[in-house]
Amino acid sequence: MNWIPGGVTAAAGFRAAGVSAGIKRGRKPDLALIVSDAPAAAAGVLTTNRILAAPVLISRQRLRRGVARAILINSGCANCLTGAAGGEDARALGRAAARALGLKERDILLASTGIIGRRLPVPRILRVIPQLAQALSRRHHEAAAQAILTTDLRGKEAALETTIAGRRCRIGGMAKGAGMIAPSMATMLCVLTTDVEIAPELLRRLLREAASRTFNRISVDGEMSTNDTVFALAGGRARVTIRASSAGSRRFAAMLQALTQRLATLIVEDGEGAARLMEVEVLGARTDDEAQACARQVACSPLVKTMLAGGDPNVGRIAAAVGASPARFDPSALEVAIGSTPVVSGGVALRVGKSLARALLKPPRVTVRIHLHAGRGRGRMLTCDLTEAYVRINARYPT
Amino acid sequence: MNWIPGGVTAAAGFRAAGVSAGIKRGRKPDLALIVSDAPAAAAGVLTTNRILAAPVLISRQRLRRGVARAILINSGCANCLTGAAGGEDARALGRAAARALGLKERDILLASTGIIGRRLPVPRILRVIPQLAQALSRRHHEAAAQAILTTDLRGKEAALETTIAGRRCRIGGMAKGAGMIAPSMATMLCVLTTDVEIAPELLRRLLREAASRTFNRISVDGEMSTNDTVFALAGGRARVTIRASSAGSRRFAAMLQALTQRLATLIVEDGEGAARLMEVEVLGARTDDEAQACARQVACSPLVKTMLAGGDPNVGRIAAAVGASPARFDPSALEVAIGSTPVVSGGVALRVGKSLARALLKPPRVTVRIHLHAGRGRGRMLTCDLTEAYVRINARYPT
Repeated sequence: MNWIPGGVTAAAGFRAAGVSAGIKRGRKPDLALIVSDAPAAAAGVLTTNRILAAPVLISRQRLRRGVARAILINSGCANCLTGAAGGEDARALGRAAARALGLKERDILLASTGIIGRRLPVPRILRVIPQLAQALSRRHHEAAAQAILTTDLRGKEAALETTIAGRRCRIGGMAKGAGMIAPSMATMLCVLTTDVEIAPELLRRLLREAASRTFNRISVDGEMSTNDTVFALAGGRARVTIRASSAGSRRFAAMLQALTQRLATLIVEDGEGAARLMEVEVLGARTDDEAQACARQVACSPLVKTMLAGGDPNVGRIAAAVGASPARFDPSALEVAIGSTPVVSGGVALRVGKSLARALLKPPRVTVRIHLHAGRGRGRMLTCDLTEAYVRINARYPT
Repeated sequence: MNWIPGGVTAAAGFRAAGVSAGIKRGRKPDLALIVSDAPAAAAGVLTTNRILAAPVLISRQRLRRGVARAILINSGCANCLTGAAGGEDARALGRAAARALGLKERDILLASTGIIGRRLPVPRILRVIPQLAQALSRRHHEAAAQAILTTDLRGKEAALETTIAGRRCRIGGMAKGAGMIAPSMATMLCVLTTDVEIAPELLRRLLREAASRTFNRISVDGEMSTNDTVFALAGGRARVTIRASSAGSRRFAAMLQALTQRLATLIVEDGEGAARLMEVEVLGARTDDEAQACARQVACSPLVKTMLAGGDPNVGRIAAAVGASPARFDPSALEVAIGSTPVVSGGVALRVGKSLARALLKPPRVTVRIHLHAGRGRGRMLTCDLTEAYVRINARYPT
């Protein structure tokens, strides 16, 4: 399994484009299109927020068929809290894309990210859709990755190649997200494309598994958006068929997970105001669920995250978050290590000299390992520090 | 029911003192003692964190008797993650206080707040306990209120007087807390004293009710500490007996709740870096629990709190937090108002002009009212904004 250059068009049979439709200010790219040359198996993982943006509602419906041809994404406007009119807006854009591509309306999946509560500037977008379709090219993956960004500082792309049953196949993808909700915006978006052949049900299952182990284990600010969307399209051009419970399926699942992990890490690295990453690993919980809940409580704690920003380790904040989590354990058995240095043992804080203490949080990626000694459950979260820049970005962002 | 000056010695039969024992730097007051002239009914509400500080473990045990005479509190050190040795430290201080007061060890309740993972400087504290006991006076309530502070900017005291069954009686109290956990520290502490006569079981029940409606409905940073403690002592000097289910009991409960509400508000007003308060009210949930969980999700959302700091209302952030909460509702029925201005109606964001929008978050105390139209459940939270100062305080605080 090898990392290769490229993103959402790394797999054979996909083209992409990104242009400015005037949704964002300053002619920034804000409209992306990804097209599969052939009908593709399609799967999605959508936000569990009870309030859903219009494109999420529409895509959820269209994903039921398990087949799609293209994905139209805009940034700058979430098209959420926009009622029935927002649904009409989204459908109008999908129809225009279908017309420009010679496809059916139902073949188009939709996603939006940006400010909640505003209507899309539909006429402006309709005007550029033909031009967007004409720009489609295997070379334009980066333009598409740029067009889906909001407060992100960098485009996020990755691609993997491997050999299954003697044939070369690939997955590539792009993502955006700088907060689980970015400022006044929503969201994390991701599009994955692959040239393997796979049944939609199997693709859906493997995508869900990969997302639950990667995207669902990161946090910038603990927020859940109204627009979070992960799409996967499998076009089949590599002539490799992935069957359930086969060696090929295990290999494909591993590749999918590696790719989503990479994109998830890129999101946290680009977290709003983030200067440092923290991996929280919980071992020895009674169950995996308790371990994951414990890891989440620590990773989402403002005090742990500001500690990481400050660079001075404070085991009390970590312990308090562990104790506040739903995980059941004997406090006198608690162990905590930062990097390879134990800082709590047998429930007692260990003395750490000032210079060592300062060094513990220096690495750009810090690992906090928590052992509860209550069972065999494991959990893991990746997060970033909470800095003054995060507050600045989110307090000053204009609506 | 009238607000009167004073704090923890406003009720007849209580004395207090606060001195510096050298636990904090710079000779700041850090040791407080509150004494009841007569054996007092005693009740407490303690943190539900699984990791408990040594004084919390000891006080929990001693509260079982339902009687106490004195409360010894230190700030600057939480005496948490200190193992059996930390328990010995706390007991040694309690014994010294009992000796200085001519009381039994079991008559002394204990609380600590400050840095987690450090041992108390016991010899230094033992040296000042006799002097602390000598300083006890009804006039010294403010010194006691100062001695329990950590990152708080202000002491927090309040007292109420009323007439029950023709006799004047009082409750007074003091509190500390500037984060649910303050920087590298833990906690919220509160001591309430009253001159009514009341059975410990009834006092415990009324205290729990008052705490659940006040202290448990505030948040500075959503954190739960290892040391949170609320104590109440009832000395009986007013010769008013409070019996369960009587008119007097309802009056006393109302007074207790008004007092804890006042102290809870003082804590949020003094929240780390806070410049503005926000009251989140949820109506029309299926149950009170769902309403409260929804209010908590909004009140603890970093994006809602940074929005409050920035002063530019963003209804999307509020709606996304409502949708992420466990409350079940029909999104197309959602209503949100900021102050008296509706901003979401029928699940759709309303257009608000720029100047009105800016004015919505101007008041020092902003009310956000959310109606789910799913039932009759109600909930409420009081919180503050998340500012760059909060991050600065918590990132830079030295361990």
